[in-house]
Amino acid sequence: MRIALAQINCRVGDFEANRRAIQNALQAGRRQQADLVVFPELAICGYPPRDFLEFEDFITQCRQTMDEIAAGCTDIAAIIGGPSINPDPLGKNLHNSAYLLADGKVNAIRHKSLLPNYDVFDEYRYFEPNRRFDVVEFKGHRIALTICEDLWDVDESDPLYTISPMKELQVQRPDVMINISASPFSYNHAADRREVMRTNATRYGLPLFYVNLVGAQTELIFDGGSLVIDPKGDVVEEMAYFEEDLRVFDVNDVVCGKASGSGRTDHGSRMAQIHHALVLGIRDYFTKLGLSKAVLGLSGGIDSAVTLVLAVDALGKENVTAVMMPSPFSSEHSVTDSEVLVHNLGCHQHHISISSLYETALQTMQPVFGDLPFNVAEENIQARLRALVLMALANKFGMVLLNTSNKSEAAVGYGTLYGDMCGGLSVIGDLYKTDVYELARYLNRDGERIPANILTKAPSAELRPGQKDSDSLPEYDVLDKILHQYIELRKGPREILAMGFDESIVRRTLSLVNTNEYKRFQSPPVLRVSPKAFGMGRRMPIEGKYLS
Amino acid sequence: MRIALAQINCRVGDFEANRRAIQNALQAGRRQQADLVVFPELAICGYPPRDFLEFEDFITQCRQTMDEIAAGCTDIAAIIGGPSINPDPLGKNLHNSAYLLADGKVNAIRHKSLLPNYDVFDEYRYFEPNRRFDVVEFKGHRIALTICEDLWDVDESDPLYTISPMKELQVQRPDVMINISASPFSYNHAADRREVMRTNATRYGLPLFYVNLVGAQTELIFDGGSLVIDPKGDVVEEMAYFEEDLRVFDVNDVVCGKASGSGRTDHGSRMAQIHHALVLGIRDYFTKLGLSKAVLGLSGGIDSAVTLVLAVDALGKENVTAVMMPSPFSSEHSVTDSEVLVHNLGCHQHHISISSLYETALQTMQPVFGDLPFNVAEENIQARLRALVLMALANKFGMVLLNTSNKSEAAVGYGTLYGDMCGGLSVIGDLYKTDVYELARYLNRDGERIPANILTKAPSAELRPGQKDSDSLPEYDVLDKILHQYIELRKGPREILAMGFDESIVRRTLSLVNTNEYKRFQSPPVLRVSPKAFGMGRRMPIEGKYLS
Repeated sequence: MRIALAQINCRVGDFEANRRAIQNALQAGRRQQADLVVFPELAICGYPPRDFLEFEDFITQCRQTMDEIAAGCTDIAAIIGGPSINPDPLGKNLHNSAYLLADGKVNAIRHKSLLPNYDVFDEYRYFEPNRRFDVVEFKGHRIALTICEDLWDVDESDPLYTISPMKELQVQRPDVMINISASPFSYNHAADRREVMRTNATRYGLPLFYVNLVGAQTELIFDGGSLVIDPKGDVVEEMAYFEEDLRVFDVNDVVCGKASGSGRTDHGSRMAQIHHALVLGIRDYFTKLGLSKAVLGLSGGIDSAVTLVLAVDALGKENVTAVMMPSPFSSEHSVTDSEVLVHNLGCHQHHISISSLYETALQTMQPVFGDLPFNVAEENIQARLRALVLMALANKFGMVLLNTSNKSEAAVGYGTLYGDMCGGLSVIGDLYKTDVYELARYLNRDGERIPANILTKAPSAELRPGQKDSDSLPEYDVLDKILHQYIELRKGPREILAMGFDESIVRRTLSLVNTNEYKRFQSPPVLRVSPKAFGMGRRMPIEGKYLS
Repeated sequence: MRIALAQINCRVGDFEANRRAIQNALQAGRRQQADLVVFPELAICGYPPRDFLEFEDFITQCRQTMDEIAAGCTDIAAIIGGPSINPDPLGKNLHNSAYLLADGKVNAIRHKSLLPNYDVFDEYRYFEPNRRFDVVEFKGHRIALTICEDLWDVDESDPLYTISPMKELQVQRPDVMINISASPFSYNHAADRREVMRTNATRYGLPLFYVNLVGAQTELIFDGGSLVIDPKGDVVEEMAYFEEDLRVFDVNDVVCGKASGSGRTDHGSRMAQIHHALVLGIRDYFTKLGLSKAVLGLSGGIDSAVTLVLAVDALGKENVTAVMMPSPFSSEHSVTDSEVLVHNLGCHQHHISISSLYETALQTMQPVFGDLPFNVAEENIQARLRALVLMALANKFGMVLLNTSNKSEAAVGYGTLYGDMCGGLSVIGDLYKTDVYELARYLNRDGERIPANILTKAPSAELRPGQKDSDSLPEYDVLDKILHQYIELRKGPREILAMGFDESIVRRTLSLVNTNEYKRFQSPPVLRVSPKAFGMGRRMPIEGKYLS
């Protein structure tokens, strides 16, 4: 049996586009003499479909599309992910399923047992878990067919689930494992995933064909990297990362260790992966919304510089507009550094001064503000006037404003709501400030795109004379370490203090994180590259008093 | 046995405040010779604690607070909701539990079996469901102790769950049912809840003591209305709605039909309930954040007028500031109607013209905009300048901006992101425009607070000369009906068309709802009064192509 893994980029709710992508891959499979083409989890409707799953009409369209594809599967078979209706009157109405299409019809169907419901995942919201286990017979093979999380129960020290799908299937003596997935990227996930899949292959002594989704869906970036692993746990093939791919393997060759694959892919450094992920994240956000043009404000600082380079890499310099908007508090180098950057990249630029607007705003508020001293109100006015200008350009010329906030400032609320926190998409909102510097150095690896001065000067919001970030925040190398412990690793104050950090800095940092939830509630979606990003994967009370 | 139901207002993560509230209620119980005081679900930490539950330190503090309260339970007992650690190595690490505190210690503990994971609920994210059933013995009684959803499996035609906790417990011959809940308000929920609880009492032939949380937690408004029901299904007591309450009952009296309660409470019309709910929602948002002052923009329209009245009812006229900001496109009546309203309410007011700011903004953009015609960009500039003024006041004087958008405009994206969509809290964002009118009439029930002219004139955003909402939207009485079918009832286009609505209006409306998800993503939290509000209870893809 020859199996093709079709690592495709699906679109949520776009049945036409998904049907075409699947049928094209089936054609490619036919050309390469595949017997069976395997597609990702929920490929029929895209992942994650979220509450579209609650519409009967949506489920009907999933099934109609599946049937249409099945009708063409006479000379070739397919395994495709899609929702199915739970035939049991007990429990939720849907399963998350894998359809085997063969002989022109839906030939078999298997359901997901382990439903992730943590971080960005909400699968229990929609699906009833499977509790019946049967191998699928096809072309003389006994296939243990599972879906994504079903194979992730490898940590036997603290199992998250009470059953193990592969242990149940193993007793039926399958000879091959197939897993269809939608497993999103984070900077340490590809290595984890490979190890989890190798553990499965060796634990059950079976060849494993693992296909993953590719492409971004708003916050979530699916990185592909589909795998073929032989029964000894050796990686026969690690497919492309961050792009569509289709490859065909003979099961017998994989079992005998005769399959010729590329083996392990060097998917590059952490920053190389993050760069690929963010470029794909930006590109798919625009493509899937039918948009092409981006605008962003260039402050002269590192965050907007890195965002601009990523936007140019994703959309092309002809589709990106950088706007410089000095105010009375902007330093001279802010503008000159930005001009060098724009020159290096060759994108469009505007210079728009907000000085008159700022003066007029102060005059407008004067009757009410009277002689009250300059404070955060005036600082925020500047940030909001810049957002006003950027959004005016975006609206007039059909562009999307890209947000340039980093994760450190989003964490502690060092940003202006409706000001620099605006934008359709937060590009680097899952990168701490220290990571932004590292990414900047990576972006300059083949020559200076971001001027050296932007990398070396002290970070400043430039909203009052001589302001530096370090006036109000701990130094970023300390701050980011505390934030990582609290946000990614969910350590409490006692554990973080035990690591030797200064007590007042720790308490102030955790309090800032918790009391600024109200700002993050209104943030744009953040491209997720870490195991714990702000947004759908981190759900915190606005009014929580814990550590605040 | 005398049981007190303590319907308290808990604070998420504020262990000190919750401990005090619980200990005060225990004192009140003692004074009224109660043997047992029963508190709501997760009362120890507030509901919903959301991802605080992922912090080991948070769970430890829950348990320490519980133990501290237990130490004082020597002469009285308590049942209190709190998280507990799952002793089984399999499955998630926590249970959602009910602790029986007696004899100075944690005497028994029972876990929730049915974990809601739909709409606003995420309980599978944190908790492992209970699968072992045991009555709790106390003072010679056999108590069937359950938690909220455990009693909601009354619809036997399409069961959401595969087990029934009360059916399991029934075989152990309990003589009383106690249920601790955190069941949020929606305008039809109190009646449903009473019927569900009556069904349980009659089905199992047992007296039922049901205690519900009261108080708002950001979007969610818990309305109390705790119930005592006799074995025949008659309501002995329906406790206060929208306020704290504590009442004591003798179990034997309830069983014999001798208990003297108030019987059914008339909780008023739909609009009376919504008014109570929104006032509580605003008040608790401010109280729990330690804030007191609100500001909002008065446009002369119905939405801001209703929001202002609600703010005054919740916070007091001395804590509310209304701001009138006419632009060149504002009609004269906008200002005069607003002035009458402010006069009627007696709150603070400011008049701040945005004309100079608008002119300066146009001049600022002129070098880039050139001779391009006036369009949505200029309309949005006005809305964003108003937001700038309101946020400047909020920042300078420590006020929270209240958002005044209604559900109809939030649904179809008829609002300006970072303009009129700004605010810390959306007060009427779960009321369709037609409901806003109905609420306005209710608010005028004892005399005109909102001037009649505001109720009768045609809705207009006044962002260009002579603009009316009906220029770009269907009439609200049609629009709201279509939206209700699509949003609350999740009907698809075919089902809605079959009801006889105009096809082009239906298709355009559904498309507008889906393509404006990106705006709602950045909306403030919306006080939830319907069974399906925008926000945490409705999770839609931004890039979905379904019906768009």
